[in-house]
Amino acid sequence: MSGRSFSAGMLLLAILALAAASGPVAAASGDAGAQNEITSFTLDNGMQVVVIPDHRAPIVTHMVWYKVGSADEPPGKSGIAHFFEHLMFKGTTNHKAGEFGTRIAEIGGSENAFTTDDYTAYYQTVPPDALGTMMEFEADRMRNLILTDEVIGPERDVILEERRSRIENSPQALLAEEIDATLYQNHPYRIPVIGWMHEIKKLNRVDAVAFYDRYYAPNNAILIVAGDVEASRVRELAENTYGKVARGPVLPPRVRPTEPEQNTARTVTLSDPRVSVPSFSRSWLVPSYHIAEPGEAEALDLLSEILGGGVRSRLYQALVVKSGVASSAGAYFDGSRLDQSSFVVYGAPRGTARLDAVETAVDAEIASIVKDGVTPQELESAKNRFLRAMIFARDDQNSMANIYGSSLATGESVKDVTEWPDRIRAVTADQVQRAAARYLATNHSVTGYLLPADPVQN
Amino acid sequence: MSGRSFSAGMLLLAILALAAASGPVAAASGDAGAQNEITSFTLDNGMQVVVIPDHRAPIVTHMVWYKVGSADEPPGKSGIAHFFEHLMFKGTTNHKAGEFGTRIAEIGGSENAFTTDDYTAYYQTVPPDALGTMMEFEADRMRNLILTDEVIGPERDVILEERRSRIENSPQALLAEEIDATLYQNHPYRIPVIGWMHEIKKLNRVDAVAFYDRYYAPNNAILIVAGDVEASRVRELAENTYGKVARGPVLPPRVRPTEPEQNTARTVTLSDPRVSVPSFSRSWLVPSYHIAEPGEAEALDLLSEILGGGVRSRLYQALVVKSGVASSAGAYFDGSRLDQSSFVVYGAPRGTARLDAVETAVDAEIASIVKDGVTPQELESAKNRFLRAMIFARDDQNSMANIYGSSLATGESVKDVTEWPDRIRAVTADQVQRAAARYLATNHSVTGYLLPADPVQN
Repeated sequence: MSGRSFSAGMLLLAILALAAASGPVAAASGDAGAQNEITSFTLDNGMQVVVIPDHRAPIVTHMVWYKVGSADEPPGKSGIAHFFEHLMFKGTTNHKAGEFGTRIAEIGGSENAFTTDDYTAYYQTVPPDALGTMMEFEADRMRNLILTDEVIGPERDVILEERRSRIENSPQALLAEEIDATLYQNHPYRIPVIGWMHEIKKLNRVDAVAFYDRYYAPNNAILIVAGDVEASRVRELAENTYGKVARGPVLPPRVRPTEPEQNTARTVTLSDPRVSVPSFSRSWLVPSYHIAEPGEAEALDLLSEILGGGVRSRLYQALVVKSGVASSAGAYFDGSRLDQSSFVVYGAPRGTARLDAVETAVDAEIASIVKDGVTPQELESAKNRFLRAMIFARDDQNSMANIYGSSLATGESVKDVTEWPDRIRAVTADQVQRAAARYLATNHSVTGYLLPADPVQN
Repeated sequence: MSGRSFSAGMLLLAILALAAASGPVAAASGDAGAQNEITSFTLDNGMQVVVIPDHRAPIVTHMVWYKVGSADEPPGKSGIAHFFEHLMFKGTTNHKAGEFGTRIAEIGGSENAFTTDDYTAYYQTVPPDALGTMMEFEADRMRNLILTDEVIGPERDVILEERRSRIENSPQALLAEEIDATLYQNHPYRIPVIGWMHEIKKLNRVDAVAFYDRYYAPNNAILIVAGDVEASRVRELAENTYGKVARGPVLPPRVRPTEPEQNTARTVTLSDPRVSVPSFSRSWLVPSYHIAEPGEAEALDLLSEILGGGVRSRLYQALVVKSGVASSAGAYFDGSRLDQSSFVVYGAPRGTARLDAVETAVDAEIASIVKDGVTPQELESAKNRFLRAMIFARDDQNSMANIYGSSLATGESVKDVTEWPDRIRAVTADQVQRAAARYLATNHSVTGYLLPADPVQN
């Protein structure tokens, strides 16, 4: 079960790496034939299904997304969503632990799973004729897991060790946790997806069973199948597997506590002997695609691209290329969230440059956009990069499945995803400037500093 | 209903003003006759009763403490505990709104109520022959409130206005809220007692009824009667009033999410045109009396007294008297909490002195105690001030009732309160030094800065 992502940021970076764009990316439509059309339907038990045909290679990606993540956990039970993801690889009443994985390996497939604040997903990439088998196994573990203390105890130790190695051993990860805990004063996004050590230690069978019975049901799941398969075949297989699973309890809307007005500038500083080069990040609360006013999240996406998306961005050009004060500088926006999200800028000094010089230079680039906006050329170029990224993403089955799954699991529709390129095209320079002016004020930001143990500067 | 305290800090300051000590203060025992002995018993329906006789004046303080505060509120419902305190002054099936208050005024009594993170209390001070009437009214509103939309809607507006005037109009209060939200990463103490504006706006009848039915019941209440009355009479009156109220639902132990390990130094800065003199505070998580190891909370109490309790403290002497860098400087520790509490130091510069000079000087005083400890004379003197404060507190009926009520509502016993002076006497200089060394490290503190709008310094 290695390589499981447990952070929204990590998933985002994975999608970014594939798609080079942080927003949802549209599907093949218009320029592709009917055989490549995306199909969406719902099984009688409430399970949503999306089929993304791609016949260029005899391979299929099969994903099930549960609309539950760490932000849905009961207070004091941090980590149960991610814990549960681990438990899904244990035995069921029909299959021993490891049997599913062994089968996938035998047919030359691959599998993985990940948990974020908003969703938990499981996927396998296999030859098309194994799709039915994947569905059988996946539908089986949706309801038939054996959750005994003998299963849960040892897995808790695995997760504690995972936390030690990924978080406790990483000053950067520890700092990131406390930045989130500071940025979000009320919303459960302040709680780490993997959970806090002292709460993971107490997770038990009762917690696991309650979580499973509440959230692991077809009416809380989305099936995404991308690859060399027809929608009619997917429907037939899905009805014979998932379709036989009884509908679960009716879940209330996913309403989590929202943020109060924030009035302060906050800093979070971690000094650690394992840090050699200081760095900083600054985060602001901004709306996600799901809660933004029309065009606002698209403008934030383009703002992050123009300000700090790669080597052609303002931050990189000004700080790394021209003045050379920074070894790295950039910005990102995570729009694929159910609730309020964050916009982040970051930087680290080069050589003997001071961290505060980097911070000042980053602030100057933001101030410049707030005051003078962006140029038509910059905007056009950023849009083109996004739209090209979408075209590349289309080439990757796994990436397309991820984009649809994460969008649908965070309240977007198939239509929202397919129309995204048009909405990006429509963003004006004025909208980008207004997004910067509205959201990027230092007096309600959270700045993180990662410093060597004996800070000589800040 | 003016003058209601809604913050634990405010109540603490009120007790401090009366008792000049932040810890629980012991009752008259040993040196007082049997007629002044404190009595504690429980009614059949689970209501705890404490009687503190005081026959020096024909007056009695009658208090009911509910073991519910803002930290027990459901997620997203911040402010419901305090909101409910307001609703308790509305009509019941037996008495019109205002009738209770009018009766108290007629007999020359006074009344008030307050809500904190951990408890909600109601009290009246009246002539002894009115005690039965107070109990009748108080027992009546424990269960017979009329909670309609017509009652709740207008009161919500009152509370929104209260929040505007007490919080939104006060940069200091706004900063204090965000310091708490930063200091507590997981525990509901991070949420303001009065509630967040956007959540208060949504509180409704369903929330109020659920809160009332769950928490307002004799088995979740403590009756404290202090004054010119005998325990036998209190028991008789209580059995005839509160004793007739049915036991409520069995409540699970008050287990709230606890804090993870904190690894960072954080700052929270509010710049506001209404601020003329800058100031800072630094807070650390420390154990309350309820969760501390034996002697630890007592040591923190004495540490706060030696470091920053009044004009003879180290901070005041060094910063205000000797160097004159500060116009104010001090420390306080709020030990009367159910869960993890905070230890706070603060200071403000005098004249043209810089805020950072004050901060550095405060740090130096802490470092000095961590390194060299406190002197036997300082410790003895601090203990004597605490024990004298206890003697003064004994002279104030209301103060004694408050001390017992707040201690019992935060998990302490009557014995814990009466034995507190002995435990204070037993604290060693070494314990005080160890408390400072263990808890007051800057690398896991939260520092708040209140600055003029155009900060020229920090």
